[in-house]
This record gives sequence, C-alpha cells and structure tokens, in this order.
Amino acid sequence: MRHAFLITDFGTSDTYVAQMKAVILGVAPPGTTVTDLTHAVPRGSVASGAFHLRACWDHLPGGSVVTAVVDPGVGTARRAVVCLSAGRMLVAPDNGLAGLLDVERAWELPPPGEGASTTFHGRDVFAPAGARLLADPGWTSSLRELPPEDLVALSAPRPVPRGAGLLVTVAHVDRFGNVLLWLRSSDLGRMAPRSVTVGERRFDLRLVETYSDHGGLLLLKGSQGLMELAVSGGSAAELTGAGPGGELLLEADDG
Amino acid sequence: MRHAFLITDFGTSDTYVAQMKAVILGVAPPGTTVTDLTHAVPRGSVASGAFHLRACWDHLPGGSVVTAVVDPGVGTARRAVVCLSAGRMLVAPDNGLAGLLDVERAWELPPPGEGASTTFHGRDVFAPAGARLLADPGWTSSLRELPPEDLVALSAPRPVPRGAGLLVTVAHVDRFGNVLLWLRSSDLGRMAPRSVTVGERRFDLRLVETYSDHGGLLLLKGSQGLMELAVSGGSAAELTGAGPGGELLLEADDG
Amino acid sequence: MRHAFLITDFGTSDTYVAQMKAVILGVAPPGTTVTDLTHAVPRGSVASGAFHLRACWDHLPGGSVVTAVVDPGVGTARRAVVCLSAGRMLVAPDNGLAGLLDVERAWELPPPGEGASTTFHGRDVFAPAGARLLADPGWTSSLRELPPEDLVALSAPRPVPRGAGLLVTVAHVDRFGNVLLWLRSSDLGRMAPRSVTVGERRFDLRLVETYSDHGGLLLLKGSQGLMELAVSGGSAAELTGAGPGGELLLEADDG
Repeated sequence: MRHAFLITDFGTSDTYVAQMKAVILGVAPPGTTVTDLTHAVPRGSVASGAFHLRACWDHLPGGSVVTAVVDPGVGTARRAVVCLSAGRMLVAPDNGLAGLLDVERAWELPPPGEGASTTFHGRDVFAPAGARLLADPGWTSSLRELPPEDLVALSAPRPVPRGAGLLVTVAHVDRFGNVLLWLRSSDLGRMAPRSVTVGERRFDLRLVETYSDHGGLLLLKGSQGLMELAVSGGSAAELTGAGPGGELLLEADDG
Repeated sequence: MRHAFLITDFGTSDTYVAQMKAVILGVAPPGTTVTDLTHAVPRGSVASGAFHLRACWDHLPGGSVVTAVVDPGVGTARRAVVCLSAGRMLVAPDNGLAGLLDVERAWELPPPGEGASTTFHGRDVFAPAGARLLADPGWTSSLRELPPEDLVALSAPRPVPRGAGLLVTVAHVDRFGNVLLWLRSSDLGRMAPRSVTVGERRFDLRLVETYSDHGGLLLLKGSQGLMELAVSGGSAAELTGAGPGGELLLEADDG
Repeated sequence: MRHAFLITDFGTSDTYVAQMKAVILGVAPPGTTVTDLTHAVPRGSVASGAFHLRACWDHLPGGSVVTAVVDPGVGTARRAVVCLSAGRMLVAPDNGLAGLLDVERAWELPPPGEGASTTFHGRDVFAPAGARLLADPGWTSSLRELPPEDLVALSAPRPVPRGAGLLVTVAHVDRFGNVLLWLRSSDLGRMAPRSVTVGERRFDLRLVETYSDHGGLLLLKGSQGLMELAVSGGSAAELTGAGPGGELLLEADDG
C-alpha cells in the first residue's frame, strides 16, 4: 500500500487539485491513497510551502510520495525535480520547496511532453511524475541524478544574539493564531525568555508547557519542532501583530 | 474494509489534520479509508463538535472509527476515551464531545507515551488510538472500561413551553444560513407554529416540506433529524439574527 | 478499482459532504476511492457546477462515477438522472448540470424511496445512486433510458463578433483571480487581441504563453481548454472587475 500526499497553493474552490488527484488515481497502483497536506499555502509562497513540508515530513509513512506545487515560475526554465529525504520522495519545482528537508539524493525530471500545458504543470508534469513514482519506485534510475547541493537553496533563519536577547524570525502563524518561530528549545540554552518585542511593542511572556496555562502571552515548545508564542483561547498573532517572515526579539529580563 | 473519519477544530490551512491522517495511514490496515467529517468546528466548541457527531453518526458505515479532536484542555488532566455507540467507535477527549451519542460502552485511553507532545494529542494520542482500533478492534479489551455515565455529560437543550409557545435553542447554522433547532417534529405535537420571535423581533413563518416552497421564513423538517428555519434562496440566520446557542420562541398564532 | 468524485455547493463547514461520502463508502466495493472535485460551487449556481464538470471531465479516470449536487429544486418534481459521457458517469439533478458535457446516453433515476428526506437528496438519492453504479455498472439497464436531448439544456456562451472585436462571456474566476473566458484559442482565428473592455473601462493586454510573462494584463491559453485573462502575481479579476457571467469585448487594436 502506497501513499500520495499533495501540497499546493491552489486552494480548493477550483478543481485544480482534483485534476491532479485524478491523474494520480488513473496511474498509481490500486490501493494508493491520496491525502491533502494543505492547499492553503499563500499564493507563490515557496517559504510557506517549505515550512509545511518540513513540519509534517517526519510524520508521513515511509515510502510516501509528496507532490508539492507552489510554482510561480511555471512555464519558465526552472527545473522539476524528485528528491529523496528520510525514506520519502518529493516531486516539486526546483525553487526552494525542498530547501528545509535533508535531501539525500535528487533527480531532474524530463522536460514536459507534447500536450502538457504551459500553465498547469501540477497536473501535466508533477502529478504524472508522482504517480509514476508510486507505480514504479525504481523510475529514478532512469532519471538524471543531481547533486543535492545543486538544488535551489532555502534555509531556515537562525536565531541571532542581540544584546542579551535573541532575534528570531516567525516561521508560520497557524489557524489558532499561534506564532511558530524559527527557534528550537535547544537554541534557548539557559536563556529563560521573559519578554518579546515585536516592532515597537514589548510583551511580557511566560515559558509554559501547554496551551491551557492561562493568562497572557505564552512561549512553549510546540508540536512542530519549533517554539511557539500562544495565548490560551486567544490569538498570539493578533495580540502581538507578528506575522510570517517578521522578526521579534526575545529577552530574558522583563524590563 | 474499514473506515476512519476525522472531525476537529483545526481547519485545513495548516498540516495538523494531515499529520493525523499520516499517523492513521501508517498504522491502519491496507484498504482503510480516511474521510473528513469537517474541520471547521469553531475553535474549542465542544457543543458544535458534539452536534456534528450526532448529526452524521447514524449515516456512517458500521464499524467506522471516528477520531474527534476539539480539545481546549489538551495537556491537562482531562481523560482520553474510546466510546462505542450504535456499532461505531469514537476516540475523543472526555469533555462532552460524545455527549449527544447513546454511548453503550466506554474505555479510558492510557496516558500519552514518552515522546508525545503536550500540545498536539490529535496526532500523538487520538490518531494513534484510532489507528490501533482500526488495526485491532479487540484492543478495547486491554483498556480500562468506564461506565458510560462517568463520561463528561452534555445534553441537547429541550424545548420548553412558554405560554402557548415553545422556547427552543439553536443547534447550528449551516452554510446556507439554515437555522437548525433543538426541536424534533414530534416535539411540536399538535402545535402548528406561525411565528418565531428572536430577541425583540417577531417573524411570521410557514410550516413547509421543502426549501423550494418560496416566500418568507420557512420551518421544515430537515435532513439532520431536527426542525430548521430556512429562507428559499436566502439565509434564515441573516434574516432573523439567530445563532448557535441562542434561544427563540415559536408560537402558534401570528399575533 | 473504481473512483467516485463529488461536486456540490455544500461547502465543507457542515458534515453534508461527509454524509454523502459515508453513504458511498458503505455501499461501494472495497477499494473504491472518493475524491472531492470542489464543494465551493456558489449556492445554487448550476452554471458554475456545469463549468467545473466540463473543466475536469476529460482528466478523470475512465469508469469514474461523478455525483454532482447543485440542486436548488430539491424536493420538487425535477428529475434525477444518470448520464454517460466519454466513458465516465454523472449522477445529478436534471437541471443543466450535465449541459456542457457531450452526453451519449441518459437514464432517469427512480423516485426517492420511503425514508428519503425532502431536503437532502445529495445523501438520500444521488449518493446512493452513485454508490450503486460503482457496485454494479450494469444497473442502468434497469433504469428508464432518456434521449439525451430531453435533458435540461445549458450551453456555453459563444463569442459574438462586435465590430472588429469579439464579445465574450466570463466562464469562471479562479483562486488566483484568473478570468477564464468562454473563448477557445481557435475562436480567435487570425485576431490578435490587444485590448479588452469591461464595462466602461478599457485595458491593454498582451497575448502570451505563461503566467510568468510579466507586466500588465495578459491573455493566454489556459489549462482548462479556455482562454484566460491573467496578471502575473496579481489578479486579473480585481484589475478589470470582470466576474462570472459578465461580458467583455476583445479588440485587435489598442485604440
């Protein structure tokens, strides 16, 4: 039994995602499952797509084939690639989507065939490639292998010491308004943050273990491998104004 | 062939639901289907989650395993349970989500294992338990059984006589603006409602059989086992201002 | 292995779609897949549903059974039908939803049985019929056949010469703000449009091949078999104000 997963910035109000799934179902072996990661990646946001792939990658069943399409360069000369990382395969444009995975091997997809549209490689290039990998995992042996370091790079912003504090980049704001940070608990070392400054505004915060620790702004080790700002029953993003790609300053003293 | 269903308040713009599905697909037997009930439960609204479970329960295939996560108490001492009702199983936090089902038997899940997050029991506790039930329906025999009456209670508000009328609670507003009421057609007895009062405003209504009976506010026996207010081609919720949990007064005379 | 697809105007915030899927999964043979086309068809918009069916039809695996429910007339005397087109089957109300497909054969569904609701034929009529077709493709031989020309008609608006230009109808606006037109590249003949007029406003445009051709308003051959207006990284719908069903004038000279 093999598993396909899809992530795009296509939304679900059109049938674009369904057309990709139809292609996969028509080619992949019986019993193949097709599951959405999300289709709400902001339009053209490779950074957001890469974040989501990183966040869920290690939870996917071994042997899964993920087709990822956030592809502002569709129809241009950007490459299409297959990547192997931790026993799962990614099919995607080579634009940084794979940038946060530990890619062990990579292959270049052949150019689109006759009849492929110039505007919808999700359906006409990536879905067929994903389906082919599901049907024939050995297919990569007929593709041109690339050194992983040749892939378009993307790296997670690292926390940067700033005075006695840490300057940290926002990775993602989730549905609950939790603000996921490019910060691991190990990055904190002995630092015990007591405040966060976003733009001109400074907020006290408490380092806690669960969302249900009530009262004010919380900092906790989240489920996605990253530290998160949260407000119990509320929205840390709304409270602080922090958004994806923005920077904020964590400090140990509360001023 | 076994069927998993999921309902959460996670939305679909993150990969949280996908991470739950990935866990299930990795453990459940080949051929298991995984289907969304909805992920648009309002954040933390156990009452809404319980309504949705009640609304669709009897339509699910026998043997289905439903994993429900609306869990404002995640990481606290609230129990996690498995419930048997009408030949289907529910895995959920013990916070009232099962409260509108006729639970015949219930079991307590063991505490989260090492490595489980404190913030995402959907992925780390409930999905694994649902997957295990799919793989081994007899698993409950190794769990501690609970008397169903020990589960956190939740009950559907009953209509209350008020003068010659009935005071009724709103169960749900659907996508079409239909206002589903905690009122069964049998609750009406011989009463033939002619008006409804919401707050200070009174509206004439007509008791009809289908949405396409045109003109004004309609009261009809809906498909979810409940009476509904509807407006043909319009929104009864918008017209009346009625919302989930609110009360309204049905009266037989039109004043 | 057989494939079910669903398209409705039900949205996904209720469990209506899930109830349809549950019915299908309970009846269809093991291994049947159930996939969403979209559930974001505007309420009651048969034209939009028909557009989506036309757009994805040829990409669906042969033998697929599509259940389509955009059904403002639910509970009235409108017929329910099964249609065969290009090796796939459609189950739908006879209200024009099938109108843009090349229907080769059609059959009338029997009237709803005892116990069917008057308000949710998606679950109680169409899903069971779709499931039955999946389980027994020969079921149609027991249904009353209809001449396809007896189905409620719906046709795609044709471009109309207007002076030296073409008056064209908008088919759909997608998530990206691309404006899909009822215009095929072959309809242009030798005309090379240089401007488009929407209402009182005229916009220069360029005929290109991909979305990544930057700068201003673009006209290109899209992936759905239709010409599209697009803005690289922006929204042609927002720029021009064009919306579904609206008309616009393409002209070869730029004034």
